[in-house]
Amino acid sequence: MAALTVTGEVGAPSTVDAAAVAEVLARVRARRPLIHNIANEVAAAMTTNALLAIGASPAMVIAPEEVAEFVARADALVINIGTLTAARAEAMRLAAAAARERRVPWVLDPVGAGATAHRTRFARELLQFGPSAIRGNASEIAALGGFSIAPTRGVDATLAPEAVLAPASALARSTRAVVAVTGAVDHVTDGERVIRLANGDPLMTRVTALGCAASALVGPALAVEPRPLIAVVAALTWIGVAGELAAASARGPGTLQTCLLDAVYALDAGTLEARARIA
Amino acid sequence: MAALTVTGEVGAPSTVDAAAVAEVLARVRARRPLIHNIANEVAAAMTTNALLAIGASPAMVIAPEEVAEFVARADALVINIGTLTAARAEAMRLAAAAARERRVPWVLDPVGAGATAHRTRFARELLQFGPSAIRGNASEIAALGGFSIAPTRGVDATLAPEAVLAPASALARSTRAVVAVTGAVDHVTDGERVIRLANGDPLMTRVTALGCAASALVGPALAVEPRPLIAVVAALTWIGVAGELAAASARGPGTLQTCLLDAVYALDAGTLEARARIA
Amino acid sequence: MAALTVTGEVGAPSTVDAAAVAEVLARVRARRPLIHNIANEVAAAMTTNALLAIGASPAMVIAPEEVAEFVARADALVINIGTLTAARAEAMRLAAAAARERRVPWVLDPVGAGATAHRTRFARELLQFGPSAIRGNASEIAALGGFSIAPTRGVDATLAPEAVLAPASALARSTRAVVAVTGAVDHVTDGERVIRLANGDPLMTRVTALGCAASALVGPALAVEPRPLIAVVAALTWIGVAGELAAASARGPGTLQTCLLDAVYALDAGTLEARARIA
Repeated sequence: MAALTVTGEVGAPSTVDAAAVAEVLARVRARRPLIHNIANEVAAAMTTNALLAIGASPAMVIAPEEVAEFVARADALVINIGTLTAARAEAMRLAAAAARERRVPWVLDPVGAGATAHRTRFARELLQFGPSAIRGNASEIAALGGFSIAPTRGVDATLAPEAVLAPASALARSTRAVVAVTGAVDHVTDGERVIRLANGDPLMTRVTALGCAASALVGPALAVEPRPLIAVVAALTWIGVAGELAAASARGPGTLQTCLLDAVYALDAGTLEARARIA
Repeated sequence: MAALTVTGEVGAPSTVDAAAVAEVLARVRARRPLIHNIANEVAAAMTTNALLAIGASPAMVIAPEEVAEFVARADALVINIGTLTAARAEAMRLAAAAARERRVPWVLDPVGAGATAHRTRFARELLQFGPSAIRGNASEIAALGGFSIAPTRGVDATLAPEAVLAPASALARSTRAVVAVTGAVDHVTDGERVIRLANGDPLMTRVTALGCAASALVGPALAVEPRPLIAVVAALTWIGVAGELAAASARGPGTLQTCLLDAVYALDAGTLEARARIA
Repeated sequence: MAALTVTGEVGAPSTVDAAAVAEVLARVRARRPLIHNIANEVAAAMTTNALLAIGASPAMVIAPEEVAEFVARADALVINIGTLTAARAEAMRLAAAAARERRVPWVLDPVGAGATAHRTRFARELLQFGPSAIRGNASEIAALGGFSIAPTRGVDATLAPEAVLAPASALARSTRAVVAVTGAVDHVTDGERVIRLANGDPLMTRVTALGCAASALVGPALAVEPRPLIAVVAALTWIGVAGELAAASARGPGTLQTCLLDAVYALDAGTLEARARIA
């Protein structure tokens, strides 16, 4: 596969490959970053367990009274808008605003953007707080970018990532966030380059919260890696490789869930370098 | 077992048997219905995973600001009143009203009806919106029907389904919903006939949210089958057969949970026809 | 190991050992106590499943409109302040006040106390309602006791239990609650004696909600055992022994979760007497 280079804050171009993905993982395990995780009700346990399995230290804090104080101490913030409520929306605004002010990197998962006008509007409102990264399926990313497409059928992607590459790139340029459109092949873009990630397994679409878990894992990656493009590629590769290893031993979506957490926990540089499909 | 006949909307009597149950499953897998799932906090992940495993496309949308818009696009709605809050109660009212108006079939799980006056009152209030089906344990169904029994001990059934058959039938007649009282032997009635389902395993009572998952699976069945009696029998047979298969390989309630999702995913016509106990 | 004695309400000193722990378990299974579980969103399913696995009958009721009515019928109450919201805080106040009035024993899990000022203040506010027991990690217990330590990194313990033994004992004396500080070795104190529990496995720290599950299991123990010191030792020993048995067969944190519920379900007197490490 081609060696891709990225220019980071420190000015040094770097290769986006399996070695970089393994290096980000090693840093997460060494530093154990504190992740402020504003998850949804469906994904609360799975995202927290994925964060623990990768080696991060997650906390789900959602009260408007305390999110700003907590995010200031966190190493990264994850905002997932599934099971949105008025109180949670307010907490997300406060947390995102505090993250921007304190320069805490954060990732947005615009669950269900495009499924209702309320949800699309709210997801777009959060863009003002400058997320470092955004991860969604093709419908969600298209809706977030303001593109008029057929309404989504909920959280379920009906479009392939490659179909929304232009909207995704435009969204990345206008927000300065790295945008990941996940699907059979994940597409990650900073508005200029596009990196394709081909790990994963179709059985993963039969387990809830794995997209949310992918977004959650972007949190610790951002906490230890200043170049969001590398951080996003790392997180999606971790879960993609773990997912395909888990699918190989799972007997269905129930065991896939438990095997996947085992596989995330067991990830190492050798496995990542042998299996990562980054192009 | 006896062959039972049901008169459907299209006027043609039909047999309620394992073949019908398998046929409904085939339609779910072919159409992948969009299910608006208003679950409770305990059951959010399990019900979503059960819906994905059976082949449906679930979304949990709970904000009063968006439920009416979303349910209009859904193929069925599931309302589960566990972990009731004021905001969620309001969302349920709006969703159920929109479902009635848009003729979207919906199923009510009156979790804990009878356990507190507030909960009984709210569950009864929802009846005005015309659910197609209601599933609960004996205490919940008795309470919902307005029968004075000893207060329930929460979500835990202390009565056998056969003990509340008269209240269940009366409730079915007054609401025109198909009513399912689940327990060691599930009893399903449209107010005239009673169908008994004898699948399942006692270990299933040691895993939370399996009753909620049974109710959730009624959603996709209603989405593809216009006769609620057949839809309810189908959904309860799916989870009952999957549960007993899972119990055969589980080592306790933890592995039962994962094995059950695997078994729901693997269900096929042959297994259903070999194991369904419908009488 | 040393035989420890405790003076109970009935005046008879009793030994805190594996036999006592097994005896409390036998009573839970025989009586199946109704546990009012006010859990957090992350731990809702795991705590409910742990309560079912041990043989209790749990219900998660969180609406301010109904908690007081429900707790009056419960055999014990569990309050866990993770994923705190304004509505849930109000429900907790009402439930705790009703528990005190009706003499329903209750246990407090002050998740994240010390992580934000709001959370510390709220956890301390609940102390006025007289919990029978409090379980937390070292940072949480220190914060709850009003000791000024470095702010916690969320729910993640950064201190060893032995480091906060003086604050824990002072907290037990001022509140008259039994205080458990859990970690590599759990420390349980009534303000006079300190009992050390050395079961468990480090892999348990990589699964969310196991601390919450430990607190939840204190509920059924309190429901059947009037001496809180014995009840707390029993619950923590149950989950510690189950956790180390599960870790022996788990392949990572995913399978640990399911194996742990299987192990809680399978606990018996022989296993507890062979493995309990109480000193």
